[in-house]
Amino acid sequence: MRVSEAAQTHRLEQQFAFLNEADRLKSVLRATTLVDGSRVENSGEHSWHLALYALVLADQARPGVQIDRVIRMLLLHDLVEIDVGDVPIHSANGAAHGSAETQAAESKAADRIFGLLPNDLRDDLRALWEEFEAAETPDAVFAKSLDRVQPVMANLMSGGGTWTTYNVTAEQLDSRVGVKVARGAPALWAWVRGKTQAYFG
Amino acid sequence: MRVSEAAQTHRLEQQFAFLNEADRLKSVLRATTLVDGSRVENSGEHSWHLALYALVLADQARPGVQIDRVIRMLLLHDLVEIDVGDVPIHSANGAAHGSAETQAAESKAADRIFGLLPNDLRDDLRALWEEFEAAETPDAVFAKSLDRVQPVMANLMSGGGTWTTYNVTAEQLDSRVGVKVARGAPALWAWVRGKTQAYFG
Repeated sequence: MRVSEAAQTHRLEQQFAFLNEADRLKSVLRATTLVDGSRVENSGEHSWHLALYALVLADQARPGVQIDRVIRMLLLHDLVEIDVGDVPIHSANGAAHGSAETQAAESKAADRIFGLLPNDLRDDLRALWEEFEAAETPDAVFAKSLDRVQPVMANLMSGGGTWTTYNVTAEQLDSRVGVKVARGAPALWAWVRGKTQAYFG
Repeated sequence: MRVSEAAQTHRLEQQFAFLNEADRLKSVLRATTLVDGSRVENSGEHSWHLALYALVLADQARPGVQIDRVIRMLLLHDLVEIDVGDVPIHSANGAAHGSAETQAAESKAADRIFGLLPNDLRDDLRALWEEFEAAETPDAVFAKSLDRVQPVMANLMSGGGTWTTYNVTAEQLDSRVGVKVARGAPALWAWVRGKTQAYFG
């Protein structure tokens, strides 16, 4: 075997170590149900649905947002849950999601999971995930808006969902969800918030 | 309400009619299992995994392939299964997948599902799906390669999977799967085929 073939083989082994590990995201369960309420959603299919949201709702993004970068972020955004699990936005009275403890655990998970990749891919995909988490660039802000609005739609369609589970108030919906959705997609939030009036007034 | 607001509202209603309908892809079951063999995969999470394949295996594509277009195709490629169901590649001794009957049913499903969208999006996304199905452009050929190779990896990881279910021979693996993977990603197929020798020699 030539050196280049050995390097190619090693690279493929690393790429598939990551892709096979990523498969486990299909077994991470979320609090939100499917639209038909039949079962809770897993984080793999959630990530697909969000990428489709980005493709279909691109016209809701602010000028300059690059939808293909948004899609890439959304494909990756939950991988750390393989180690950490999903932390529902309304759980622990809203205190668990985004806590320093959760962030530290997710950073460690990112080290391990992206670390399975060849170095160039590790650095590129880790940087995309960090950008999503920081929620500062226009692409990341829009991606976060979609991540927040999709469970709202699932709750609307399934008859209340996690709003009932966690006794969510209108103020909590606005502060935990609305602010984030409106930041990246203001017209979208105005429309969706109108739909929620049957639950929250 | 101004006309422009009414139009915006109508557009959002159409976009979410599609996105909520798309949710049903999470309930379409495939023959292939998860990597850990714990259950069969659904077509929603499969679509996510394939999009991640495209992101990670971009260096296996031929020069000129636009990975972001490949990702978009893969996000959409199975939506017609909401109406038609998944047709396993090795089922009915390989005769069902891609049959004229299946193709006609999928085309009708595409009319209905993409038809939920505003006209501009309907045309754009339908065209991407048609391009994937035709498997003629470099982007579609690479997308098809990934769609064929991912179940091979799941079978390898889970101890045989659908090869055992359908008594697949080496010749069938090569003709139904290998030719398609090698067309878009020859080095990838050479490597994966080597891994299958324990099953097929």
